[in-house]
Amino acid sequence: MAKIVKSLKDLDVPFNFHYPAGATIVTSRANNRDNAMAVAWHTALSRDPAFYAVSISPKRFTHSMIAETGEFVVNFMPVEQGELVALVAGCSGRDVDKLSAFQIAAHPGSQVKAPVLEKAFAAYECRVTERHTYGDHDLFVGEIMAVQFEPSLFQEGGRLDMERIAPIVYMGGDWYASPGKETYYLDRKGLMDAVLGKPAQPASP
Amino acid sequence: MAKIVKSLKDLDVPFNFHYPAGATIVTSRANNRDNAMAVAWHTALSRDPAFYAVSISPKRFTHSMIAETGEFVVNFMPVEQGELVALVAGCSGRDVDKLSAFQIAAHPGSQVKAPVLEKAFAAYECRVTERHTYGDHDLFVGEIMAVQFEPSLFQEGGRLDMERIAPIVYMGGDWYASPGKETYYLDRKGLMDAVLGKPAQPASP
Repeated sequence: MAKIVKSLKDLDVPFNFHYPAGATIVTSRANNRDNAMAVAWHTALSRDPAFYAVSISPKRFTHSMIAETGEFVVNFMPVEQGELVALVAGCSGRDVDKLSAFQIAAHPGSQVKAPVLEKAFAAYECRVTERHTYGDHDLFVGEIMAVQFEPSLFQEGGRLDMERIAPIVYMGGDWYASPGKETYYLDRKGLMDAVLGKPAQPASP
Repeated sequence: MAKIVKSLKDLDVPFNFHYPAGATIVTSRANNRDNAMAVAWHTALSRDPAFYAVSISPKRFTHSMIAETGEFVVNFMPVEQGELVALVAGCSGRDVDKLSAFQIAAHPGSQVKAPVLEKAFAAYECRVTERHTYGDHDLFVGEIMAVQFEPSLFQEGGRLDMERIAPIVYMGGDWYASPGKETYYLDRKGLMDAVLGKPAQPASP
């Protein structure tokens, strides 16, 4: 790689090197108002107990709603809903009642009051257990109280059936993409054995 | 969505609903040994100052190396390096000197001693500022001390040139995918104006 930049302030391009990332919609509900926000800064944190985290700027309306209620839902979206993701990303819940204005079909979570979007292929209902400020964003750590998903879309091993559904990923700016139908099976055990010339010890789970 | 599961223990499929996620390789160096690990649980945390985080089980060799040195590098990989990602995922640095066994070309970071992989299209050199245990994993919060990237691969707006490079994403199990060449531009401002029937206020950055 040809270029090394020590400070993001010296970068002549945005902080987008880490994309693609899933273009999720994070929903919240407070004071009888639902809200939705596009979030690309998110990650699984733990399997048992199950934790998921979202990183949200204190400037965002969603931040105040999650801070108040301690609840949020992460909705995983198909690329067919790209325009919805862009609409949700384009404005603040302070100015627009997004679920109403964009006619977003949703139902309350089973364990939290925040809405689960009908068009999501899976959703995590989360209750905040911790919140940490890291730089200009806060990380909301959520225990996953329930998973909602369409079972027919998930194949053996929990793999999304890409023949039937294409998840949307965010590429930075107003750019999105999707893995489409092509997936690659990489036989890590076979590869290991071939390269090392002996049966490999698997890494700890 | 048809199914609601309250505990991951009751799930008959793995905890893979949140994929795709970038299939990164996280590198570390301690006691004159380089190591590499495949990591799909990672996210940006902050822009200014720039922070990036990786979630790693205490069982992993990489965990002990980062804990000891307080440094790591997140390497963002193209799909052409899928076999390397699978090899790195398939074994532990306790058993295999992966950079040597898999002939991984790398050079030391400019600000940290952990190696930067030659085949990465971008890499974040990170110094740990905080570490938090969330469930069965620890989150290492790293301040980005330097960004390495190939400038010709990043277009205006910081968008990866998908005509030239296809990033690899992880789908769970031994399955991977890539967005390929097709990207979608979604004009959030235009969409907003059309749906709301008036010029929209942008959300806070």
